[in-house]
Amino acid sequence: MKKIGVVGLGIMGEPMAEHLLNAGNEVFVYNRTACKAEHLAMKGAVVCSTPAEVAQHCDAIVVMVKADAEVEAMILGANGILEGAQAGLIILNSSTILPQTSKRVAQLAAEKGIIVLDCPVTGSGIQAREAKLTFMVGGNREAFEQCLPLFNVMGKQAVYMGESGTGSYMKLANNSLMAINLLSLVESLTMAYKSGVDPEMFLEVVNGGGARSAVAESRIPKIIKRDFVPAFSTSMLYKDLGLIYELARELQVPTPVLASVREMIHTAVVKGYGDEDVCSVIKCYEELAGVEIKKL
Amino acid sequence: MKKIGVVGLGIMGEPMAEHLLNAGNEVFVYNRTACKAEHLAMKGAVVCSTPAEVAQHCDAIVVMVKADAEVEAMILGANGILEGAQAGLIILNSSTILPQTSKRVAQLAAEKGIIVLDCPVTGSGIQAREAKLTFMVGGNREAFEQCLPLFNVMGKQAVYMGESGTGSYMKLANNSLMAINLLSLVESLTMAYKSGVDPEMFLEVVNGGGARSAVAESRIPKIIKRDFVPAFSTSMLYKDLGLIYELARELQVPTPVLASVREMIHTAVVKGYGDEDVCSVIKCYEELAGVEIKKL
Repeated sequence: MKKIGVVGLGIMGEPMAEHLLNAGNEVFVYNRTACKAEHLAMKGAVVCSTPAEVAQHCDAIVVMVKADAEVEAMILGANGILEGAQAGLIILNSSTILPQTSKRVAQLAAEKGIIVLDCPVTGSGIQAREAKLTFMVGGNREAFEQCLPLFNVMGKQAVYMGESGTGSYMKLANNSLMAINLLSLVESLTMAYKSGVDPEMFLEVVNGGGARSAVAESRIPKIIKRDFVPAFSTSMLYKDLGLIYELARELQVPTPVLASVREMIHTAVVKGYGDEDVCSVIKCYEELAGVEIKKL
Repeated sequence: MKKIGVVGLGIMGEPMAEHLLNAGNEVFVYNRTACKAEHLAMKGAVVCSTPAEVAQHCDAIVVMVKADAEVEAMILGANGILEGAQAGLIILNSSTILPQTSKRVAQLAAEKGIIVLDCPVTGSGIQAREAKLTFMVGGNREAFEQCLPLFNVMGKQAVYMGESGTGSYMKLANNSLMAINLLSLVESLTMAYKSGVDPEMFLEVVNGGGARSAVAESRIPKIIKRDFVPAFSTSMLYKDLGLIYELARELQVPTPVLASVREMIHTAVVKGYGDEDVCSVIKCYEELAGVEIKKL
């Protein structure tokens, strides 16, 4: 495939489009706020005025937008991808949405002979720029294999999870894991700090043993430096936790730990930390415990 | 130091004593159930009939027993270490106990010129046998530095945490982290499995991204293999979570997430999984969700 579309040029979509360009593809882009496409246009991308127009040109289209409603608008809506698409098109929907939405969109597209893979990613803007994303892919397996060269250009790994919707499921499970791992750190660190443990020694012990985690490596240093610039914002995590919680009800899986984590992330949003990094939830604990964590 | 005591020859204490022997020390051991010392006696350890007798011979004594009451009995009790000790002795208490107990024991010992370091470990029997433990050490810093050669023989790392009690604090914080990380996996895995995700693909994605953790690496494979042989037993974790919870009340740090995790581990104990590995808590979720997780 040589003609690839990218719909949604945010913090994730833009670098993904750039990697596709650099790999020698003809790239057609669409973004609601058109000026965001200028940088890519200078690098040779063709800027289209609707998702339907992108679809007229392409064999595959990456969709990377914020939520279920946007995905539906871009694919199913007026001037959406399905309006311009020919049978055989593959849509790679990398947006984080409900598995049910992924399944429904895939079914509607299938009626026109168009395949939709749900292929959300782990990793944030940094990993997108470095092409180190991991794609979790649900849907038609042959289409997955056909798209491997594209996944490899945009990321380091693509894992086939199962039928349509399983990619979306896995993404939510992964975010749930990260959120709970984060809260484990925040509670333990607050306790350890209040009892006289230096947070840098805390990090050293955690990294050296059975409590080691990617979240500890990335977030404890941010907390010690009081750096709440978002790598992943509290309000985005809160949105995802809402999706996961809804999903758990539907799957009839009780999730008492997730429920308490969601409440604490909700507290952080209410306290005004929505636009800060997820690790800003530490400030809720600090306030309750009457401390501020810093290097001793 | 050349004459080292080891009090408590369980799954942890015995290999620790063996490493001290292999490093060329004269080793004096005591265990309540004397027959457990036979293996070490054959390797050259001197078996003593009381902790006081161990103390008469040694410059440093490692104490590795189960809980606060045993630590108090071995150090402060009749025929305990303090009865036989000379001023200058260093006690390395590697048992997992309350920081308050560590502080109190250290204060009482100090009145006789004896130093007690609280130096619990991360790692289980496997790490003890391979000398890969990490020691978290609280108490007199000079004594800590003096004991570094001993820590290095028994483990891979010793981190000085601060004043007396901070080693015990850090150990509890670390176990709290592991428990919460475990529950994050158990809830997410149950959800993902019920939605059609293969647990081995789940593990691959988790290990490759931001949800990576030591607990995921060690426990997801055990869950998939239905291997509930304890590396760390549910009842031991439940005991530790009780200590941590008590500590959080005393420190006035609210811990809603820990509270929900403790309840689920309690559920596992009530269901009869106390002697199995901590990952057996998955069976509580499976029962509630009506699934049994296996390779797809």
